[in-house]
Amino acid sequence: MNVLIVHAHPEPKSFTAALRDQAVDTLQSQGHQVRVSDLYEMNWNPVASAEDFSTRENPEYLVYALEQRLANKKQTLAVDIQQELDKLLWADLLILNFPIYWFSTPAILKGWIDRVLVSGICYGGKRFYDQGGLREKKALVTVTLGGREHMFGEGAIHGPLEDMLRPLLRGTLAYVGLDVLPPFVGWHVPYITHEARQAFLQCYRQRLETITEDQPMEFPRLNQFDDRLYPLT
Amino acid sequence: MNVLIVHAHPEPKSFTAALRDQAVDTLQSQGHQVRVSDLYEMNWNPVASAEDFSTRENPEYLVYALEQRLANKKQTLAVDIQQELDKLLWADLLILNFPIYWFSTPAILKGWIDRVLVSGICYGGKRFYDQGGLREKKALVTVTLGGREHMFGEGAIHGPLEDMLRPLLRGTLAYVGLDVLPPFVGWHVPYITHEARQAFLQCYRQRLETITEDQPMEFPRLNQFDDRLYPLT
Repeated sequence: MNVLIVHAHPEPKSFTAALRDQAVDTLQSQGHQVRVSDLYEMNWNPVASAEDFSTRENPEYLVYALEQRLANKKQTLAVDIQQELDKLLWADLLILNFPIYWFSTPAILKGWIDRVLVSGICYGGKRFYDQGGLREKKALVTVTLGGREHMFGEGAIHGPLEDMLRPLLRGTLAYVGLDVLPPFVGWHVPYITHEARQAFLQCYRQRLETITEDQPMEFPRLNQFDDRLYPLT
Repeated sequence: MNVLIVHAHPEPKSFTAALRDQAVDTLQSQGHQVRVSDLYEMNWNPVASAEDFSTRENPEYLVYALEQRLANKKQTLAVDIQQELDKLLWADLLILNFPIYWFSTPAILKGWIDRVLVSGICYGGKRFYDQGGLREKKALVTVTLGGREHMFGEGAIHGPLEDMLRPLLRGTLAYVGLDVLPPFVGWHVPYITHEARQAFLQCYRQRLETITEDQPMEFPRLNQFDDRLYPLT
């Protein structure tokens, strides 16, 4: 497989970075090709704006997705966006590797999503969910967080983690057609011992060694809905 | 009331901007004080990083929330963060006004959340949910989106919008103690007529005229959980 790891952590020596390195080592030793986009190191610009388009279909009024669609067709996407899009299209597996900030991605990674998941290629028209532009590729979300495992799940104080991650797992990754694998979670990371962190790294290695056999999560399929997207009964 | 509107849209003439202006006009005519943070116009930096701290408790290893806590105590928060935090602490009602990007906030607004909701004042220790640092204030999320209303809800293709917005409504706004009012939604905005947009603006005006009477959404309360945050049965 070709694997793209998009990594977003402001501390180069973080445990999140150790997870990134573990993934690179393990996946390469399994014979996969691996590329890493380290967003902080790249000084990635996360702000979707008119400056992303050197020429505009409509210079008077910005509809970001529309300009994306046309820039993609004319091959005039901004260089930083095109480079990331090329990596994404090259990849069979996308790993998003980040610490949870506010039950979500850090802004720098949200801006990778906003700018790189280009309309007209990743989604658009009826190309979404199982018909999305990135179908037949996979995605894995690898996160660290401060909370303990018992704070998540049915009846727990924060509810199921998958529910908190719904806009990412379902609304983004599944939406563009990716097969979304169950997230890998490093719990309570700021507060645990070195040994406990090593145990997470071992766990992650084992998970990655058999990642090609993992079953994706279930999400909506377009054949469950009619042409106007009303549910078929 | 004091009202802070945090506005995030890359197009100054957008319908989202019209909603912002409607809110300013309506709330001022009701006698409220209103301030606006227009994140694109301010060229807001959304990236949480070591550069946010002029002095560091630990210059060798960045724990962002820890440095926030200490910088807040020593009054050494970065100027742009402190200015926004002051506005937030001044406000009785926070309105987040934005177009949905990937079932979530645009990155520039996510970065306002990442950097301005400072640990040690907005949350930290047992100060979260109904005990959060911003309790007794209110929050309203005002969004525009491309989807039609029938695409959201139980059984609909994207499920309930409130579920998609859970990390924001529950994981962020309710987490810091805000009373979260039901979102105001402009459906299908890129595709509707001028008259339909005017109707949304009228709706929004009426909603805002009685906003002080709105009932907040229900979220967890700490007295439902024990000291280790296991649910009390």
